[in-house]
Amino acid sequence: MASAEFWYEFASTYSYPAALRVAALADERGVNLLWRPFLLGPIFAAQGWRDSPFNIYPAKGRYMWRDLERTCKAMGVPLKRPEPFPQPSLLAARVALALEGDDRSAFSRRVFAAEFGQGLPIGDRATLGALLAACGVDSAAAFERAESGANRALLKAETARAAEIGVIGAPCLVTQDGEVFWGNDRLEQGLDWAAGARVGDVV
Amino acid sequence: MASAEFWYEFASTYSYPAALRVAALADERGVNLLWRPFLLGPIFAAQGWRDSPFNIYPAKGRYMWRDLERTCKAMGVPLKRPEPFPQPSLLAARVALALEGDDRSAFSRRVFAAEFGQGLPIGDRATLGALLAACGVDSAAAFERAESGANRALLKAETARAAEIGVIGAPCLVTQDGEVFWGNDRLEQGLDWAAGARVGDVV
Repeated sequence: MASAEFWYEFASTYSYPAALRVAALADERGVNLLWRPFLLGPIFAAQGWRDSPFNIYPAKGRYMWRDLERTCKAMGVPLKRPEPFPQPSLLAARVALALEGDDRSAFSRRVFAAEFGQGLPIGDRATLGALLAACGVDSAAAFERAESGANRALLKAETARAAEIGVIGAPCLVTQDGEVFWGNDRLEQGLDWAAGARVGDVV
Repeated sequence: MASAEFWYEFASTYSYPAALRVAALADERGVNLLWRPFLLGPIFAAQGWRDSPFNIYPAKGRYMWRDLERTCKAMGVPLKRPEPFPQPSLLAARVALALEGDDRSAFSRRVFAAEFGQGLPIGDRATLGALLAACGVDSAAAFERAESGANRALLKAETARAAEIGVIGAPCLVTQDGEVFWGNDRLEQGLDWAAGARVGDVV
């Protein structure tokens, strides 16, 4: 079965619609989807950015919020801008990484829906605990695994791997043969590629 | 008749496939397309960039070139990276602005095809003169109009207007009601909006 990695960051606005869309798109194409939470912070820091580029470049930020508004409206999902933006996403990423399989994807979708659909503070343990419970996951055990030294190290390693394979933003779809497709609007193209319809293959 | 502005910059990589695609897409939707050459330089300079962000941020540049390669291959058009990148685009923009109607769009497509399809130096008067001749335009007269004080001032004014209406990169599709759609991959969405299918309208 063809597989593809879905790299996402909980603070990333376009990861929200992507996380809600990607599973159905992968299923339609028979692609096994691997959910890969990571942190954009270190990747942005390597480019000299200490904040979201949408804050550093206000014109780009204004464009993004309007564009996201159109995207969410077209999908029929709510959009409520969280304050502050970006939200602290470290704990959510650790928790997601500590979960496996469907628990990870279900929890991740709920985090995005809470953050950008309801404007809830996803840096708060209480918010995340409630989302874990809603997924039927024991939140105390999940937090313990999430904050273990091994899981913290794994998130660092995953983030380093993201940078290494060319993940320059979030979300990204990465195929087994190493192609990177950046953006919510490139999910279909990336999954088509993963499924074998390699229009544009120039190798 | 609904109309939309197509804002493009000759040094912009994604403006190349967009310039080749946009007229047919507008025709299909019955949208009157207004070709708007402008300069990204002053807009980037306002954000503190003195070079293409694809050069300033090499990881982003590597992604873009590979992505553009896939895009061109899928369209069946050649891609040859011009050296240096970005190409000096001031003269080409002045010439395009000095032309009207179909002359402007035909010349603009030829400039992009020469630059990114053949890797030709579009800063050279000789290159542009040959492209003008291929369009059936008197090149001496076109250069004279292009370099007149009035036309230079018009290009400055157009670039200032681009920044004002929220054009943050190239290409952009801007609708009569002020919506901005950034990127080659957003032409369809922008033209659908212009034609009246306003999925995502939240106003």
